[in-house]
Amino acid sequence: MTKVGIVGVTGYTGMELVRIILGHPEMDLVYATSRKWDGQPLQDALPVFEGRTDLKISLLDPSEAARKTELVFLCLPHSEAMDTAAELVGLGIRVVDLSADFRIRDAAVYEKWYGPHSQPQLLPDAVYGLPEINRDRIPETSLVAVPGCYPTSVILGFFPLAQSGLLNPASVIADSKSGVSGAGKEPRAGLHFPEVEGNFSAYNIAGVHRHTCEMEQELTVLSGEAVRVTFSPHLIPVSRGILSTLYADPLKAVTAEELVDLFRERYSSEPFIRIRSCADPLPSIKEVRGTNRCVIAPRVDRRTGRIVVISCIDNLVKGASGQAIQCSNLMLGLPETLGLEHLPLHP
Amino acid sequence: MTKVGIVGVTGYTGMELVRIILGHPEMDLVYATSRKWDGQPLQDALPVFEGRTDLKISLLDPSEAARKTELVFLCLPHSEAMDTAAELVGLGIRVVDLSADFRIRDAAVYEKWYGPHSQPQLLPDAVYGLPEINRDRIPETSLVAVPGCYPTSVILGFFPLAQSGLLNPASVIADSKSGVSGAGKEPRAGLHFPEVEGNFSAYNIAGVHRHTCEMEQELTVLSGEAVRVTFSPHLIPVSRGILSTLYADPLKAVTAEELVDLFRERYSSEPFIRIRSCADPLPSIKEVRGTNRCVIAPRVDRRTGRIVVISCIDNLVKGASGQAIQCSNLMLGLPETLGLEHLPLHP
Amino acid sequence: MTKVGIVGVTGYTGMELVRIILGHPEMDLVYATSRKWDGQPLQDALPVFEGRTDLKISLLDPSEAARKTELVFLCLPHSEAMDTAAELVGLGIRVVDLSADFRIRDAAVYEKWYGPHSQPQLLPDAVYGLPEINRDRIPETSLVAVPGCYPTSVILGFFPLAQSGLLNPASVIADSKSGVSGAGKEPRAGLHFPEVEGNFSAYNIAGVHRHTCEMEQELTVLSGEAVRVTFSPHLIPVSRGILSTLYADPLKAVTAEELVDLFRERYSSEPFIRIRSCADPLPSIKEVRGTNRCVIAPRVDRRTGRIVVISCIDNLVKGASGQAIQCSNLMLGLPETLGLEHLPLHP
Amino acid sequence: MTKVGIVGVTGYTGMELVRIILGHPEMDLVYATSRKWDGQPLQDALPVFEGRTDLKISLLDPSEAARKTELVFLCLPHSEAMDTAAELVGLGIRVVDLSADFRIRDAAVYEKWYGPHSQPQLLPDAVYGLPEINRDRIPETSLVAVPGCYPTSVILGFFPLAQSGLLNPASVIADSKSGVSGAGKEPRAGLHFPEVEGNFSAYNIAGVHRHTCEMEQELTVLSGEAVRVTFSPHLIPVSRGILSTLYADPLKAVTAEELVDLFRERYSSEPFIRIRSCADPLPSIKEVRGTNRCVIAPRVDRRTGRIVVISCIDNLVKGASGQAIQCSNLMLGLPETLGLEHLPLHP
Repeated sequence: MTKVGIVGVTGYTGMELVRIILGHPEMDLVYATSRKWDGQPLQDALPVFEGRTDLKISLLDPSEAARKTELVFLCLPHSEAMDTAAELVGLGIRVVDLSADFRIRDAAVYEKWYGPHSQPQLLPDAVYGLPEINRDRIPETSLVAVPGCYPTSVILGFFPLAQSGLLNPASVIADSKSGVSGAGKEPRAGLHFPEVEGNFSAYNIAGVHRHTCEMEQELTVLSGEAVRVTFSPHLIPVSRGILSTLYADPLKAVTAEELVDLFRERYSSEPFIRIRSCADPLPSIKEVRGTNRCVIAPRVDRRTGRIVVISCIDNLVKGASGQAIQCSNLMLGLPETLGLEHLPLHP
Repeated sequence: MTKVGIVGVTGYTGMELVRIILGHPEMDLVYATSRKWDGQPLQDALPVFEGRTDLKISLLDPSEAARKTELVFLCLPHSEAMDTAAELVGLGIRVVDLSADFRIRDAAVYEKWYGPHSQPQLLPDAVYGLPEINRDRIPETSLVAVPGCYPTSVILGFFPLAQSGLLNPASVIADSKSGVSGAGKEPRAGLHFPEVEGNFSAYNIAGVHRHTCEMEQELTVLSGEAVRVTFSPHLIPVSRGILSTLYADPLKAVTAEELVDLFRERYSSEPFIRIRSCADPLPSIKEVRGTNRCVIAPRVDRRTGRIVVISCIDNLVKGASGQAIQCSNLMLGLPETLGLEHLPLHP
Repeated sequence: MTKVGIVGVTGYTGMELVRIILGHPEMDLVYATSRKWDGQPLQDALPVFEGRTDLKISLLDPSEAARKTELVFLCLPHSEAMDTAAELVGLGIRVVDLSADFRIRDAAVYEKWYGPHSQPQLLPDAVYGLPEINRDRIPETSLVAVPGCYPTSVILGFFPLAQSGLLNPASVIADSKSGVSGAGKEPRAGLHFPEVEGNFSAYNIAGVHRHTCEMEQELTVLSGEAVRVTFSPHLIPVSRGILSTLYADPLKAVTAEELVDLFRERYSSEPFIRIRSCADPLPSIKEVRGTNRCVIAPRVDRRTGRIVVISCIDNLVKGASGQAIQCSNLMLGLPETLGLEHLPLHP
Repeated sequence: MTKVGIVGVTGYTGMELVRIILGHPEMDLVYATSRKWDGQPLQDALPVFEGRTDLKISLLDPSEAARKTELVFLCLPHSEAMDTAAELVGLGIRVVDLSADFRIRDAAVYEKWYGPHSQPQLLPDAVYGLPEINRDRIPETSLVAVPGCYPTSVILGFFPLAQSGLLNPASVIADSKSGVSGAGKEPRAGLHFPEVEGNFSAYNIAGVHRHTCEMEQELTVLSGEAVRVTFSPHLIPVSRGILSTLYADPLKAVTAEELVDLFRERYSSEPFIRIRSCADPLPSIKEVRGTNRCVIAPRVDRRTGRIVVISCIDNLVKGASGQAIQCSNLMLGLPETLGLEHLPLHP
């Protein structure tokens, strides 16, 4: 049993980590922090875990964290995570950071989209925690940057295309739709129930959303060419789930069947990725709800020749906390799927 | 007061016509048909209209319709509407057809997407009922083909671009999201409440959905070049509303401000269209719910130069029954907005 | 045209008043206040009214209100409304108050449930604005206290029973379910979209909710005996609507048919109340959405003899702003239903 | 590993059994039937289980079931289950029946509410599968009748009261609210998504719903007096969950604190039942979603003295398939909670 901790346990990604860790056969949650709930039992802060844990919440104390745990999950807002991560890594603990702080390799790019970076010296060793791309590097590092929720769905949907040289780098569009939990647990006017119920809207379109730079960074590495992404996020009136509809022009003509083969081959040994052939039903967010799966349907519009890929994840699992566990399984030498075999709740 | 009738009154577009006509100061609903409810009071079939109409439902009898009404709305499935429309027009009544049967000018194209057409001789005189494009021709015709819900949102969002020569005809993508009422009132497995709640999915993507040919026809006419559309419809877990996110490459570089000006100018005298500038909030489906409005936000992705347009309607109003009333106001020489000034119900 | 104003226009009841007044043929909205939006156009604060009003929002200035309007709607929190109401009434304007401040006739009872009352001298002249009960007194008063949303549904559902002497005053239970807009527009943790979606819960049960005293006051007056109500409010994951399931033991055995007759007779000339007989479908909140209707189904459990009544309203219309308009129509000598003939939006 | 089968695997209770059994360490699903999917892989019929089972669906053949399994779950409609159950029991298999067919001990009562019973001779040995009441009898029987979803929530909420002699048997009311999955997977008009979204309604009230007789049977046994229940079911626009609000007059005055003590004591060793004290938050359906828990909050209306109990379950888990597994754990001598430790998915 590996002793682990969660910094910032009461937000949605923190809660989701608790849910997964309490069912994980090789992880023991021994440390959890929150400013607001310091001194309270975890099950009072998060009553869904009533009767399942006796842990008390405390204020973050890095040396206490280092004493009690081997690995810590950071669920802090961007800009707040970087110094804590640096301190914990300095104390010899392994850190899985769910913020954006170590996702962008180039500090200047980070600064442009997010603001100043106080720990740029850590960037070279931080590993972008998408196991499907970086499986080999994750076990070695002490600092994993868990990908953003949108980038996870988009990068996994474009990966085989980018790597195969099929992707016209100037043609990349990601039209993504997300459940509301992606915006966090803090109530605000636009996420008030009566404003979202029965509604659907776009936000931060046309080059504004911060996840854009993360998608571009990874797709550029994978394809070896400078990829520019037009990214359009939308808000679905559901709690969980991301469905991304991806568009690209192929550099040479391709059929849907060839694409399906390409994706199947590339992802043949991936435990969490399922490829839907042309005869299969298209993916939907409810079939991945609560699971670490990514379901992908590659298609080609026969009339226009354009590639259209549907990619579906649960934003809180494969898009955040499940992916964090998948990375830590790799870091700890555990089977990658351990504690992550949840089935979707349907209906 | 003009006497009007509805053929197929109990479906969602029929119901929505009743709602609008009962509040319309110059239309009198005197005839309504349904196979299932023949002989029953309309308010028994549609209890939301309890106490507001004494009309009895009957079986369709074209000569009775001709005797009693001046104008008839057809709410029949495609293929079923064409013969009825022909018969009614032959009897001297004006027909506003909400099916697909007279939307496609070329019978061969219709046949390819929908099946055989039995009344091709009527196609030349039928007018595609999008007043923003065909305002001049609608008053003269006796047969209006009300546009599909998706095409309405897509064509209105591309129209100023197509007409201005800005639109690269090979770059057109429409990523549309619709509420469930667009699929009709007939219950079926995929629309059963527990399957849709908490869910979001794509369907009929990659060149399969029938509305594609309608979008292409109109955009081709407007732009003077053969436009091919990659169209991806999605199902939102709400009852009403369509939001289309439209993508295109401009033939010459353009700024968002220039686009907003272009759209404002083109639509300056349109009573139902609202253009959102870059400082305005993006449209959402709930703000058009129950109204005949189309709210459009033209944007440009500064980094990729790509045009992104958000276009929002209520699929049952501007996307069907409201548009039908707007057309019939024009046909009858009434003010175009008469009976269509509903405000959205918010929240 | 009567010139009217709204104090506190940006909350949900204020918005709903705007929606109704903009469609009202005899009311002209000339004054609207909000602390937060002072100096801004109303259509900027409430974009759903874009293009429909040029009114600017200002800070409340009672003498300006008195100069500009004949009648003012107060949409302020309880305790804040009382002094403003007193000042406006003193200046000769008629006031329709949507807060709780003048609903409770006995200042001591008010104080127990809500806190101190600074204007008890106004209580004797204030009229409880339920037209079905107080139609004769509303035209005369200059201060109407619009009933609470829950009490409207509960009192209308018990009224014929209370008045007929059938109601055992010790047996009265109201199990009510409300949409989330009843809790107001202010975002808070428990009303954050991901917390409410897919959820259902009770709150403030077992004698705690403040609307209890209002129900008891009116039912006691109507029945002539001290009625005590066990009231259980619940939160439905929808924006609008209240459905109350009411229970009572009859003082003498009664059949459902007799109850239906009793309700039909009592409400025979009520324009907004519909009684569902035993053969009719039970009411649902969506069929009253956006309307000023109250749909009531009186039933008797044959096996236990207990009376069960279902009563349905839209909490923002008949439960608040629609009822306020209905009262002001009466105050102004206008037809009671003027501007209130909205049909429900279905689906 | 015990080999088990499911008859009628493609409905919602069948699916939920598959979900639980695939995660159960001591059950092996080796047999599954469906008329419609005969010969197809289970994962084609239920794609959420893709990659997790190779089982093929077959037509029911009792002797094959007897050869392959030790225990069979019956997910058939009432009236259809009884003969199959009899045949399987006759072949020596243990049967856990999720239909209503063996819940009612008195065949005459069954007949009155459901229709003729062809296997009344089995009724004496069938055990009503509510472990909190019948834990001792379940291990011995070969035929368990899994309780209905509503009765589970209602009986567990009244049980300590009934047993303690506090319950006035003439005062019992159950106002229950259920998610739509309780109505099954078959699409129909009233459960079509656009009809349920944004809606809330009551149905089968005033002594009509069949679950009434089941509640009365068990409460009568527990209290030793003839209990009559006024039961009002309602439909919540969510997929899963039941919240029952229960009302009763106590035979002697009682405080909420005393009630909480009574419930805590009665349920002290129950693994799935949680009692909420007066200081605790009231239960909500989302906190039990996907779990076998029943959360109960007993309260007393101080002003009326009436008892009000909130009782919450997931209708498909503790209200059906989870309870079936709990019973079979008991039948097989396994730890009662085995395979049932799911945490709720929140948000």
